[in-house]
Amino acid sequence: MINKIRIAIDMDEVIADTIDKFIELYKREHDTVIRLDQMDGKEFNEMLPEDIKQTLKAYIHQPGFFRDLKVMPGAREVVKELCDKYDVYIVSAAMEFPNSLIDKYNWLAEHFPFISWKNIIFCGNKIVDTQIMIDDRIRNFVGFKGRTLLFSSPHNHFITEYERVNNWREVADKLL
Amino acid sequence: MINKIRIAIDMDEVIADTIDKFIELYKREHDTVIRLDQMDGKEFNEMLPEDIKQTLKAYIHQPGFFRDLKVMPGAREVVKELCDKYDVYIVSAAMEFPNSLIDKYNWLAEHFPFISWKNIIFCGNKIVDTQIMIDDRIRNFVGFKGRTLLFSSPHNHFITEYERVNNWREVADKLL
Repeated sequence: MINKIRIAIDMDEVIADTIDKFIELYKREHDTVIRLDQMDGKEFNEMLPEDIKQTLKAYIHQPGFFRDLKVMPGAREVVKELCDKYDVYIVSAAMEFPNSLIDKYNWLAEHFPFISWKNIIFCGNKIVDTQIMIDDRIRNFVGFKGRTLLFSSPHNHFITEYERVNNWREVADKLL
Repeated sequence: MINKIRIAIDMDEVIADTIDKFIELYKREHDTVIRLDQMDGKEFNEMLPEDIKQTLKAYIHQPGFFRDLKVMPGAREVVKELCDKYDVYIVSAAMEFPNSLIDKYNWLAEHFPFISWKNIIFCGNKIVDTQIMIDDRIRNFVGFKGRTLLFSSPHNHFITEYERVNNWREVADKLL
């Protein structure tokens, strides 16, 4: 048996659309409209008016927050194809939000049922032994010796030091 | 800053006494006495009478099962000391039992509060980039390139191919 190349794939803002959820939430609950096309170089938190900035953290810690995120366009189809060619791991820094653990597990079971529990990693620091890492946070690339693909998200818009993928079509073009 | 050597430390039967819980549970709920000194080379499951063998899996999947395990003797003290010298990661194959995720997180917060969420990894396959791994399951050593310390547990009693530690005092002797 030939060992497949291992890929680590992040969840939030890579396969799960966290920002879409934030935008909908603040429109509905706080009458605050945040536009995705004005977010370049910024975290969602920085977009919020001062008086409601603190609410964000509370939302993220709520049970259920991560359970109903939309799947990023094309993610399911491309990840499924990647699984034929690679040993695909879903690696999420879920440990920061312990209530997210079971939500993220159930979300993956619903939307990515072809990913075995053996290939799911919830952690803090991403010290994984893989050859490729797809992530929107460059802090997760620190110390990683393999090939890094920076998945575009508004907050990383102005970062130029890494090989970049803007969407799942571009991941497919590079890896399939 | 000099990077510390990283250690991956398993939970069940290494820092958390799963077998003790099983023994107490089957004595109390099934009037079945299992003796630790008769378990050499066997999984707990193999010790149970046929008619109640199937109950084990149900217990492990119950919410709360992993929340009240005893800490293995000496584990807390030695792991705390290891944290001064090493970059210590707790790495558990918790993903097999999704209800265990929050229990294990809370158990660690209670008994090992000096372990940051950044240093906790819940996974299936243990594809971690560490230099040392302490584990009772040799399947977790497959593909791991670092130093392995097989932590003694009845089921691994007859395995001779790995450097072994019988308890936390022996871990301290080897690593501190």
